[in-house]
Amino acid sequence: PDDWSELDRRAVDTARVLAADAVQKVGNGHPGTAMSLAPTAYSLFQRVMRHDPADPHWVGRDRFVLSCGHSSLTLYVQLYLGGFGLELADLEALRTWGSLTPGHPEYHHTKGVEITTGPLGQGLASAVGMAMAARRERGLFDPDAPAGQSPFDHFIYVLASDGDIEEGVTSEASSIAGRQQLGNLVVIYDHNDISIEDDVNIALSEDVAARYEAYGWHVQQVQGGENVTGILEAIENAKAVTDRPSFIELRTIIAYPAPTLMNTGKAHGSALGDPEVAAVKKILGFDPDRSFQVDDEVIAHTRGLLDRGAAARADWQTGFDAWAAKNPQRKALFDRLTARDLPDGWTKVLPSWDVDPKGIATRAASGKVLSALGPVLPELWGGSADLAESNNTTIEGADSFGPVDAATKHWNAQPYGRTLHFGIREHAMGAILSGIVMHGPTRPYGGTFLQFSDYMRGAVRLAALMGAPAIYVWTHDSIGLGEDGPTHQPVEHLAALRAIPGLSVVRPADANETAYAWQAVLDRQHDWFTGPVGLCLTRQAVPVLAGTTADGVAKGAYILADWDPTAERKVILMGSGSEVQLAVAARDTLAADGISARVVSVPCLDWFEQQDAAYIESVLPTAVTARVSVEAAIAQPWWRWLGAHGTPVSLEHYGASADATTLFTKFGITSQAVADAARASLAAAG
Amino acid sequence: PDDWSELDRRAVDTARVLAADAVQKVGNGHPGTAMSLAPTAYSLFQRVMRHDPADPHWVGRDRFVLSCGHSSLTLYVQLYLGGFGLELADLEALRTWGSLTPGHPEYHHTKGVEITTGPLGQGLASAVGMAMAARRERGLFDPDAPAGQSPFDHFIYVLASDGDIEEGVTSEASSIAGRQQLGNLVVIYDHNDISIEDDVNIALSEDVAARYEAYGWHVQQVQGGENVTGILEAIENAKAVTDRPSFIELRTIIAYPAPTLMNTGKAHGSALGDPEVAAVKKILGFDPDRSFQVDDEVIAHTRGLLDRGAAARADWQTGFDAWAAKNPQRKALFDRLTARDLPDGWTKVLPSWDVDPKGIATRAASGKVLSALGPVLPELWGGSADLAESNNTTIEGADSFGPVDAATKHWNAQPYGRTLHFGIREHAMGAILSGIVMHGPTRPYGGTFLQFSDYMRGAVRLAALMGAPAIYVWTHDSIGLGEDGPTHQPVEHLAALRAIPGLSVVRPADANETAYAWQAVLDRQHDWFTGPVGLCLTRQAVPVLAGTTADGVAKGAYILADWDPTAERKVILMGSGSEVQLAVAARDTLAADGISARVVSVPCLDWFEQQDAAYIESVLPTAVTARVSVEAAIAQPWWRWLGAHGTPVSLEHYGASADATTLFTKFGITSQAVADAARASLAAAG
Repeated sequence: PDDWSELDRRAVDTARVLAADAVQKVGNGHPGTAMSLAPTAYSLFQRVMRHDPADPHWVGRDRFVLSCGHSSLTLYVQLYLGGFGLELADLEALRTWGSLTPGHPEYHHTKGVEITTGPLGQGLASAVGMAMAARRERGLFDPDAPAGQSPFDHFIYVLASDGDIEEGVTSEASSIAGRQQLGNLVVIYDHNDISIEDDVNIALSEDVAARYEAYGWHVQQVQGGENVTGILEAIENAKAVTDRPSFIELRTIIAYPAPTLMNTGKAHGSALGDPEVAAVKKILGFDPDRSFQVDDEVIAHTRGLLDRGAAARADWQTGFDAWAAKNPQRKALFDRLTARDLPDGWTKVLPSWDVDPKGIATRAASGKVLSALGPVLPELWGGSADLAESNNTTIEGADSFGPVDAATKHWNAQPYGRTLHFGIREHAMGAILSGIVMHGPTRPYGGTFLQFSDYMRGAVRLAALMGAPAIYVWTHDSIGLGEDGPTHQPVEHLAALRAIPGLSVVRPADANETAYAWQAVLDRQHDWFTGPVGLCLTRQAVPVLAGTTADGVAKGAYILADWDPTAERKVILMGSGSEVQLAVAARDTLAADGISARVVSVPCLDWFEQQDAAYIESVLPTAVTARVSVEAAIAQPWWRWLGAHGTPVSLEHYGASADATTLFTKFGITSQAVADAARASLAAAG
Repeated sequence: PDDWSELDRRAVDTARVLAADAVQKVGNGHPGTAMSLAPTAYSLFQRVMRHDPADPHWVGRDRFVLSCGHSSLTLYVQLYLGGFGLELADLEALRTWGSLTPGHPEYHHTKGVEITTGPLGQGLASAVGMAMAARRERGLFDPDAPAGQSPFDHFIYVLASDGDIEEGVTSEASSIAGRQQLGNLVVIYDHNDISIEDDVNIALSEDVAARYEAYGWHVQQVQGGENVTGILEAIENAKAVTDRPSFIELRTIIAYPAPTLMNTGKAHGSALGDPEVAAVKKILGFDPDRSFQVDDEVIAHTRGLLDRGAAARADWQTGFDAWAAKNPQRKALFDRLTARDLPDGWTKVLPSWDVDPKGIATRAASGKVLSALGPVLPELWGGSADLAESNNTTIEGADSFGPVDAATKHWNAQPYGRTLHFGIREHAMGAILSGIVMHGPTRPYGGTFLQFSDYMRGAVRLAALMGAPAIYVWTHDSIGLGEDGPTHQPVEHLAALRAIPGLSVVRPADANETAYAWQAVLDRQHDWFTGPVGLCLTRQAVPVLAGTTADGVAKGAYILADWDPTAERKVILMGSGSEVQLAVAARDTLAADGISARVVSVPCLDWFEQQDAAYIESVLPTAVTARVSVEAAIAQPWWRWLGAHGTPVSLEHYGASADATTLFTKFGITSQAVADAARASLAAAG
């Protein structure tokens, strides 16, 4: 561009040299893309984006997502140049213990990192969620402002790589972005045709631009990573197209201008080596004998972003204050949501159920809870991966979130709507939920069958790593779903999900525990970093039990029915979800034999394990080693609590296609089995 | 078509009525698609496909994959009409205990079902693997025959739904199919625009046909599920295009001709109700008061497939016999592979390593094993999801599998090649590996980082459910990968994978255990149904240990170094992979304190748990309750073996970005920690 100065050119080359030096110093990392994307990243950070290095949490900022997280230096170097808090010493400490510059960008660890990325595809998919959240938040806070005139209007920028483009989660999310007509989303696809196995031609021959056109995106192509004019023009064009997401295919040469390694797979994920780094420096007019060379006038120039950011911020603040003055109620909502507070007395609307042997399915109870909360918690929104009626995820009376032309006979769509429709795209759903919570203060949930938590796992794990408070509604949580058979019956999923650090797996025993579970989840998630929660709910009706308590559920496990403390033969029966009723029934059977059983309902092992030792001992006294666990799933998570003499009643193999009652009987998940196991455990305990 | 008789018409309508009746009888299921796809399915089974109902395992058959597995009746009804073994009583027993007609089609359970489907996307993605396998097998057995002239030439037909199209795994696999130019693959996309949330417009607005054109497929569109002429013409066109996979977008009306429910989401996954079923029968000229009505002349007509199949089979046999006579060596290979036998003395080529404190990474050892096995086991082939050098998955000297125009500077591609390049598409890789083993007798493997087993999980689970002997090479199996940080460091993955019934998770302790692990895996997989195996391998070097044995590895756990049986204070130290060395070192430390430790190497908990009680007791005697487990991962799978007094040395949180040595030290996964835990456990055991 005309105003591109010698200092701009030098700053871009400085970015390249710093990337090469940082990787060379630690001996490993990804220099190539950080070099070839330097002009683009510099243009975005210094010229395109509205942001303020002094306040990386500014609500009005544009968001930046580095979907190709391995190229973390692309981001770190701009955070350094722009003055977001990183200094040269941080770049020198790349990928070392305790540094602010880990191998992949980590949210909450390094200021200015909007989201943790690295597992390919997740960043772009979550960016779709950010763009959706931006529209929903605008709808909550400033729905009537003309387009582009609200303090809540801004853009989401993404840098994506060939690897992001290959991953299926990106395909899913990109299709959703097209359907949602997300005009606030701009994806720059760094098409360098190189991945770890070198030239991608060996594995990729599709026409990516045509694919994005098929998704309904606005697509442009720019030749050359050095073509800043073309890049900036394309971004301006993209911003001007407000009814479609934009895809800019930018053809670059990885590791440009490394003389022997550019355009090779070796430059992707390895240090270039001292001679090549020196050669790069020579080509760019840097001293080959110096490392981490930054000219004073260059850093002074780039840190000018602090002033420009402050000015942009002040300008925005005027608009925001005017909005606040005009919209006191919406401002109050904005403040409440930003503080992650819940309104006074919100729990009063929660439904409750009388003890009832017939009962209802916990998925149905969950649906009642959502519809009850809908009017009092506008921050709550969500939907399903095409299983709305099965997951009971629709808040009664809510419009669907989507452009009006997405409407169907069944769903009334409007851009600020509340019901989400992910289609049969569970993985994108997971990533989008993360993007929504990364973007702002709303509270999203998404449903599918527990079985298909497998499809979402990449996104769920990353949410847990970030502590992101997404909510997954996983119904049809055992063989209790019946006839759909083993392809749809979770057996190992509770164990596999409980294994994820930071994810809370909550499996309520009945309708009231379901309401208490929602209460506990929303309470806990007042603290953003309490992480994601998966509610595991039954398809089949389960009795409404006596003795359930909100406090017990919040603690993860509690005494639902106690023993006679004076009894000689005492046993602990613990279980979760639809199997708690079996423990309750077995307790009666055992009482007839003179065995006194304590039933411990365990809606959330993760929360229970966070309680203090005294509480844990009060629920599961060490002295009582006769123990039974019951869950229609593999026993793996229970052994820790079974001890030497405990006996699990579990399902260690796949299910079958038949009605639920038959399956529980045939597979021995019955109150009789629980009673038998209790006797066996008592015998073993001696 | 001209020869479409009244009996053909009646047979198609019979298929519709049977589908409606079967769902109505059991009260649940998916009638709609089975009704609207009846003409297509009938045309495929009765007219298009070369198959023999009397021998569903005939090598020369065309394969049929029902990717929309929920529409199992589409398949079951044709298996009944064609005489593959299902009878009317089986259709009447739909979705009930013990029936041959479970909710979703299950391989090995119902004759004629080529692959278990239901979780959407998996079928189509695995069909890509089948088409790849067909080419590779032809290359092994009959590489020189002109196109279409070999007994090993046939087609893979897929019926896919809107849901299959939305799932990312399909996008990944379809891109691979385009790259591979799989002319033997024909996908019919049942575009009925209805999913469970009714009109898909709420979640899907892309141009699917254009997307498939972008992948490089041959794309056709056919209007109307009743348009048999158009369908058959399109299939003939598809078969004629041999250098690209074919995609036929078939616009249908779900549940046609149900008068009130066709074209609605309700007809997708619920019984239509008696009045609607009766109305369908009236419209089609069936007696509304009869259920499961099949005219004698209809079933006689459709069972004519038995004769036509036998004739086709005999015709093919002539060609096959001629091939066998001309190619005795290839025939011998074919016979060996079909029997899943391994050649005599094959284990002699396996490398071995001397005891060495420096050692090598198990991923590197695995690479040596593969290159050693390459020349003697032509059935072994595989590759990586763009991590070939990191996963060490390339057999030395092997060509890449792909059209010649896929070649790059680094890879020589040819259609019968051996090295697979999945791109960064782990989920498709998993499904494709399943498709390859479902198709024929080769033995495929696929690599990625253990972290990204999460992305593959849908496919891995389905492989385990089928007992399919795929091999996953999962390297970088702990914080030992170092600087890439927590996004790439598995912590929960070993637990989460061990939870999957039927999957063997194998984590060898050193180079020799790695070779023994490959040996055990290939031996075990002589039996197809032993299921998939995941080899979990280190990035970092680990010592070559004394005491490893092939027999011990095959048993899953064994005594690597024993205690003094007369010692008073005895402890068991058990662990897997890179942490076994810590147990070995701790054993020395403890010996100095007068504590005698047995080190149990546990390369595969799954295999160990399959051993008889006597062996288990011999390795882990009940009387010794002082026990320590050590694994740089969560302890969940170990509690079962730790008992009341055991102490895990584990990692219950996420990792960090730093070098491996620092991480093991900072996180307390050290021989010192093992020794301390041993003392603690001894104290607890009293």
